[in-house]
Amino acid sequence: MNNLGVVKRNIVRAPRAAVEKLSRFGVASIHEAMGRVGLMKTYMRPIFAGAHFCGTAVTVLAHPGDNWMLHVAAEQLQPGDVAVVACTTDNEDGMFGDLLATSFKARGAVGLVIDAGVRDVKDLTAMPFPVFSRAISAKGTVKATIGSVNVAVVCAISAKGTVKATIGSVNVAVVCAGAWVNPGDVIVADDDGVVAVPAAYAQAAADAAEAREANEAEKRARLAAGVLGLDMYNMRGPLEKAGLKYID
Amino acid sequence: MNNLGVVKRNIVRAPRAAVEKLSRFGVASIHEAMGRVGLMKTYMRPIFAGAHFCGTAVTVLAHPGDNWMLHVAAEQLQPGDVAVVACTTDNEDGMFGDLLATSFKARGAVGLVIDAGVRDVKDLTAMPFPVFSRAISAKGTVKATIGSVNVAVVCAISAKGTVKATIGSVNVAVVCAGAWVNPGDVIVADDDGVVAVPAAYAQAAADAAEAREANEAEKRARLAAGVLGLDMYNMRGPLEKAGLKYID
Amino acid sequence: MNNLGVVKRNIVRAPRAAVEKLSRFGVASIHEAMGRVGLMKTYMRPIFAGAHFCGTAVTVLAHPGDNWMLHVAAEQLQPGDVAVVACTTDNEDGMFGDLLATSFKARGAVGLVIDAGVRDVKDLTAMPFPVFSRAISAKGTVKATIGSVNVAVVCAISAKGTVKATIGSVNVAVVCAGAWVNPGDVIVADDDGVVAVPAAYAQAAADAAEAREANEAEKRARLAAGVLGLDMYNMRGPLEKAGLKYID
Amino acid sequence: MNNLGVVKRNIVRAPRAAVEKLSRFGVASIHEAMGRVGLMKTYMRPIFAGAHFCGTAVTVLAHPGDNWMLHVAAEQLQPGDVAVVACTTDNEDGMFGDLLATSFKARGAVGLVIDAGVRDVKDLTAMPFPVFSRAISAKGTVKATIGSVNVAVVCAISAKGTVKATIGSVNVAVVCAGAWVNPGDVIVADDDGVVAVPAAYAQAAADAAEAREANEAEKRARLAAGVLGLDMYNMRGPLEKAGLKYID
Amino acid sequence: MNNLGVVKRNIVRAPRAAVEKLSRFGVASIHEAMGRVGLMKTYMRPIFAGAHFCGTAVTVLAHPGDNWMLHVAAEQLQPGDVAVVACTTDNEDGMFGDLLATSFKARGAVGLVIDAGVRDVKDLTAMPFPVFSRAISAKGTVKATIGSVNVAVVCAISAKGTVKATIGSVNVAVVCAGAWVNPGDVIVADDDGVVAVPAAYAQAAADAAEAREANEAEKRARLAAGVLGLDMYNMRGPLEKAGLKYID
Amino acid sequence: MNNLGVVKRNIVRAPRAAVEKLSRFGVASIHEAMGRVGLMKTYMRPIFAGAHFCGTAVTVLAHPGDNWMLHVAAEQLQPGDVAVVACTTDNEDGMFGDLLATSFKARGAVGLVIDAGVRDVKDLTAMPFPVFSRAISAKGTVKATIGSVNVAVVCAISAKGTVKATIGSVNVAVVCAGAWVNPGDVIVADDDGVVAVPAAYAQAAADAAEAREANEAEKRARLAAGVLGLDMYNMRGPLEKAGLKYID
Repeated sequence: MNNLGVVKRNIVRAPRAAVEKLSRFGVASIHEAMGRVGLMKTYMRPIFAGAHFCGTAVTVLAHPGDNWMLHVAAEQLQPGDVAVVACTTDNEDGMFGDLLATSFKARGAVGLVIDAGVRDVKDLTAMPFPVFSRAISAKGTVKATIGSVNVAVVCAISAKGTVKATIGSVNVAVVCAGAWVNPGDVIVADDDGVVAVPAAYAQAAADAAEAREANEAEKRARLAAGVLGLDMYNMRGPLEKAGLKYID
Repeated sequence: MNNLGVVKRNIVRAPRAAVEKLSRFGVASIHEAMGRVGLMKTYMRPIFAGAHFCGTAVTVLAHPGDNWMLHVAAEQLQPGDVAVVACTTDNEDGMFGDLLATSFKARGAVGLVIDAGVRDVKDLTAMPFPVFSRAISAKGTVKATIGSVNVAVVCAISAKGTVKATIGSVNVAVVCAGAWVNPGDVIVADDDGVVAVPAAYAQAAADAAEAREANEAEKRARLAAGVLGLDMYNMRGPLEKAGLKYID
Repeated sequence: MNNLGVVKRNIVRAPRAAVEKLSRFGVASIHEAMGRVGLMKTYMRPIFAGAHFCGTAVTVLAHPGDNWMLHVAAEQLQPGDVAVVACTTDNEDGMFGDLLATSFKARGAVGLVIDAGVRDVKDLTAMPFPVFSRAISAKGTVKATIGSVNVAVVCAISAKGTVKATIGSVNVAVVCAGAWVNPGDVIVADDDGVVAVPAAYAQAAADAAEAREANEAEKRARLAAGVLGLDMYNMRGPLEKAGLKYID
Repeated sequence: MNNLGVVKRNIVRAPRAAVEKLSRFGVASIHEAMGRVGLMKTYMRPIFAGAHFCGTAVTVLAHPGDNWMLHVAAEQLQPGDVAVVACTTDNEDGMFGDLLATSFKARGAVGLVIDAGVRDVKDLTAMPFPVFSRAISAKGTVKATIGSVNVAVVCAISAKGTVKATIGSVNVAVVCAGAWVNPGDVIVADDDGVVAVPAAYAQAAADAAEAREANEAEKRARLAAGVLGLDMYNMRGPLEKAGLKYID
Repeated sequence: MNNLGVVKRNIVRAPRAAVEKLSRFGVASIHEAMGRVGLMKTYMRPIFAGAHFCGTAVTVLAHPGDNWMLHVAAEQLQPGDVAVVACTTDNEDGMFGDLLATSFKARGAVGLVIDAGVRDVKDLTAMPFPVFSRAISAKGTVKATIGSVNVAVVCAISAKGTVKATIGSVNVAVVCAGAWVNPGDVIVADDDGVVAVPAAYAQAAADAAEAREANEAEKRARLAAGVLGLDMYNMRGPLEKAGLKYID
Repeated sequence: MNNLGVVKRNIVRAPRAAVEKLSRFGVASIHEAMGRVGLMKTYMRPIFAGAHFCGTAVTVLAHPGDNWMLHVAAEQLQPGDVAVVACTTDNEDGMFGDLLATSFKARGAVGLVIDAGVRDVKDLTAMPFPVFSRAISAKGTVKATIGSVNVAVVCAISAKGTVKATIGSVNVAVVCAGAWVNPGDVIVADDDGVVAVPAAYAQAAADAAEAREANEAEKRARLAAGVLGLDMYNMRGPLEKAGLKYID
């Protein structure tokens, strides 16, 4: 109830070095390194092959049919940021297109994660501006369709000037595609999906991911040489104890 | 492009006698009798067990997060009508609750079909006001949340007074849950789903349904007596020709 | 390739005593007792509250838009049987209604499991004839709509009288809602879902379920008296070893 | 009830100039220009990257498991047409493959929109023949599987020669993936989805889309230069009135 | 990364008076009163008609195939609590049945919200123990299937005694069915769905809901008397300004 | 009940010549040639464009959150094999990644079909190791997260050393994505989906597919030359008999 109609300007972004280091690892590795938390739902997919990014979250809580808050968010974006848009209800409308992408890119944003739809996919691909979304939909929002004048969209003002309805927010904590994201968290997206790393754990997660990948290189070489995981992981004894039976 | 922001006041409702006759048959029978067209998607389900109705359609084209047009529609409802609400995008918000139901019922409406969500299910059940919907959701719309004053919701007006955005409509043709519905069509809903019967065919459909059911009574008796459909429908020859083989 | 267009007349049903014994236990217990296999997908739901049955399977492989094979199956049904209908493709059409139910009931069938749709739900409820299905749909199949004469439905016959297309089958092994079902298997359905018990294991499954339920009665009493599962199952040590930490 | 088993030969196609002009704009722009109506569901996706087309609709109403009507439609196709296939029930079978594509292409068709499945995707991609579909499925229809002889598929004829069952139709109004399409309407498909433009509004929609895109070019330049939408659209005042609060 | 394998014993529950007051209002009213936030996804449904409750959350983060943490949670439950179970991945297995329900009830719990499956629905209904879940599934978890001895389930311990894998937690913040829930929050569930009210706002939400309902009673009476929402809400002017046109 | 915790070492693979011949045809052709059976659900999609393979099945029955059985399966893989992984419940976790792929490839496996999720998509694409899966998910399984020591995962051992819980199996019959697969069956996957050909019918299916494709080449040429299917298949008469009417 305290987070409605609010734009938080000063947020604590994860340390730049941690973000930089996280950008060198894949989503699967980071997710594992964190203890397998923070992953968004698998319905979040890139709008073009190979789309990927790693940056700090500027969060947006929006309503279906309203991309006003995305314009508000643009002003809060700094170089290296990722816009993370949650929606108050399941919705696939194309809330984001090439005009907003142009604006976001001009602000230095490196990507968008949106639990709704996007459009102008061809243009976004050409820019390129990487986006992970729930859907692709040509159906835009009201704001995008009007000319050049002020409009009251979704939000409502009573005769007494008191806001009675929910308007969106920027830089509040949000649930996006099943993941809890706070402004300043690190958002990593690649072919395997999208993971949110809490700002306070970004460095630790990066270090853990590095350790994991180092560890994996050696394992990969052994497996490629024909060593079985059964032996490499000493699984045969536990499997036998677990009752596994080989038959011919 | 001609149907936006329009309320059609005079609509031609299906003949009362035809509606009355259709009310005596089930959705499955009517759907069959019509040649198996006009059925809504199977995700449309009653909000309480046994909900059913048969009436003439007052159609509504609404936007997610906006139930303004349902209030507009209330004025167009006449005794025996069914409100049929289509949405411009897939949405499950609870656009309809007990206040609107009270209003609709006061106007004489006999039910609601809505390709979105409803709420206040307990109250609607107690009234009872039968509803078939895509979902049940406590999430209301903007209109429902404000006090008593005028608001501009979803729709937008430029400085020049020209409408630039889509507002909803009442009594235009709509696609509701995959079915094409024109104002005045007969809407029949029961345990098996919802079917829309074009006003012009209402009498013919009723007659055909009657013929089907008469025909079925005799078949039912024979089947109950142990006669097989294989014999009653003379299927054995065709099945053999079709290559069906019995093995032991 | 060997199972197309075939009706197997002599099938080995699970022993009557085993079926009888299984009928006394719930689906969850039986499923557990079997080692947690044989459960159908959770989208299979009863068409009326409290629907349940336990019987031996007569299987049907049908095509969307064709319930011919259900009439063929009727002749193979014996008292205590359950018809299990798999479909060659995902489909929600109402392939089964009150006429077929009348016929099945006259044959002594105790229920239907169908990975497709059913209709005439009100009539089926009144009979009652319990059904577990993927969907409820008023859209019937071709056979159901014709009068009284032979028709070639779905299956196709060339000028030379050779069958070129797939027709359905009765009493072949089928995959129904993700479960493998052979004719004669025991099908148990209740509020928790549907499970298929291979005929050869019916007695063992019944015995195991009985043992489980006996075992549970004592546990239930202890839990009701306030004993914690943590203590009853001696979980505290393993949990501590697993690293669980209590904080204040 | 009047549209069953009918092939309409003479349809009024949208003016060629309007179609040509619409082909220069994207689906998102056209959809906006029309007032955000006519968009198909977002589950309609291209079978290969970059698939797109713009042409006039020849509509087909088909039944699952039956692509007979697609052969009937082939004869009605003229250069520049798009086949739009609606299905009487939700179905994903591959009703269209490379043979029909070869035939459609020979007739001058520029694409296919089908609310069902397609197959032979590799061949269709190589041709290329662009298709937007609900699914990709190797499961073909009966017609496609038979040799070279006449067959009665799905539709049924009684002994008296009277049609008792529904057969499909060509060039009747259909609901395809949630959109209402009349024969002759303009169908535009690209990365953002599929939109149907009524023939009567094709020219107006093209003009409106042109105006929108001209308008957007200037905005894009300003946004790229760092101007915020907040300022460009004069949103700050309305946002403040709406109660938006900035906090630090 | 800090919340894994943790059980928090001392949590701050919402004030009893606020919980009591909230229990008098419906989910829709409370959700509106809060500004339309905190609602769980609409796929969360009661396992029996009329199930409802209002209590304070004891949260559980569990893994598919593991209900160990539910036993751990039992010890933390106090009279008036509601167990809220989130799962680390989408899963429908029946993680909760009549034994755990017996234990929870003995502890004084008033209900369960679980973003996974439940089983033993018949027993839960008879008790009654109200549950809102994503699914009903007879497929239990490993813990439920073993006899009486310690087992290491899902979680894993290395030779050095260090936990390397994720185990679940109790009374940490979780995302359950799309809603953010902290231990001690008020959970209200009824026919319209499930809403989570932050403990700190429980009293304010209850007061706001009370105000809303008082306000609605008067409106309901006027609407029942035939007054139109158009007039009661003074919508006619704004609608005209928005461009709505009445035609005959 | 007999198939739990079992690894079958000696399986009868389909004849090499038949596999080789099948590899020359597409999934759609083979599926048709078999009489349209054996196709997996359409949600099974390739993780990279153009992925395809044809090989003999080594089957795996796994539990969510456990990829132990995939390591067990690795040892059973021979050159030309395809791993086919079924899951005991609907699950999208990434049970397979680049380490297992390295191992499988070292064993000579040509692909993977998994009714669950995969991760490390970028690496799998680079190898390339073709996979058809239900989902892409960075969420790994427990085994993948541990270092180098024995663990008891999912399966559980009682104090008496008796297995009480279900462990997975290798080379038992499984239901994978709706298709019944036995070890040794031929699995063919391409842009159109995945089909399982029983080993005993592999040669016949290959021959039938060859005949179909030969037959299609001629048809394709005629259709490309403008001949209509209506004429090539002699459909006009049957259509007329079926009641099809041409109108202007």
